[in-house]
Amino acid sequence: MIPARSPDPGLDAPERCRLVSEVLSRVGDKWSVLVVMTLGDRPRRFSELKRAIGSISQRMLTLTLRGLERDGLVARVVTPSIPPRVDYELTPLGKSLRGPVEALGRWAMAHQGEVQASRAAFDASSGTGGLA
Amino acid sequence: MIPARSPDPGLDAPERCRLVSEVLSRVGDKWSVLVVMTLGDRPRRFSELKRAIGSISQRMLTLTLRGLERDGLVARVVTPSIPPRVDYELTPLGKSLRGPVEALGRWAMAHQGEVQASRAAFDASSGTGGLA
Repeated sequence: MIPARSPDPGLDAPERCRLVSEVLSRVGDKWSVLVVMTLGDRPRRFSELKRAIGSISQRMLTLTLRGLERDGLVARVVTPSIPPRVDYELTPLGKSLRGPVEALGRWAMAHQGEVQASRAAFDASSGTGGLA
Repeated sequence: MIPARSPDPGLDAPERCRLVSEVLSRVGDKWSVLVVMTLGDRPRRFSELKRAIGSISQRMLTLTLRGLERDGLVARVVTPSIPPRVDYELTPLGKSLRGPVEALGRWAMAHQGEVQASRAAFDASSGTGGLA
């Protein structure tokens, strides 16, 4: 184990990086971010989520919701009507993730033009038409 | 195109989701997040970055840095010494991403215990030992 070398609170330490990266591989996933953002204001049914996100497949939405449920971020709420109604809602842990996730989403929305322009310039100057 | 149905600022719109998800697929990637966090305080050389992050392979760090450079978030700075010295540093755009990314990293650090506990409980109750 290599000791942290900068004065910041240990972000250099490989062990912390490993723990953080494990959580990030779930919560930083783009579909998870979009589901958490979409559930931000109120519970929604599967079909509502799918319509709101638009580009997600049925299978990917199912997997994303199951992963978020497993991580304790989303709860399935079943209302015993006929037919039964299933809603998905953020848990308290999921709600605590809204702030950071929405900040990232807002950054992406505000800066996507700059990112696209930079990609176009990079591809033009490297003459490859994109990353190999 | 399905119109946005909630009063929030258009997050429901599939087109916005598509743009955001495209940017997130880069900046929400766990390695990108870790590189941006590690470059937060000062420029670093490749070998310093690799040591700081620990679990990343040489190839994955190369690809991540190239993707971040293409997106305009990281700059390669070559000092013409003998041998030449190459540092990586955040651009102004990359620095603007630090706040949101560090908030996500801090959330991950603060809550990784809860996430792990929830995963263990989910796996025990579903009796599968994990997601298929």
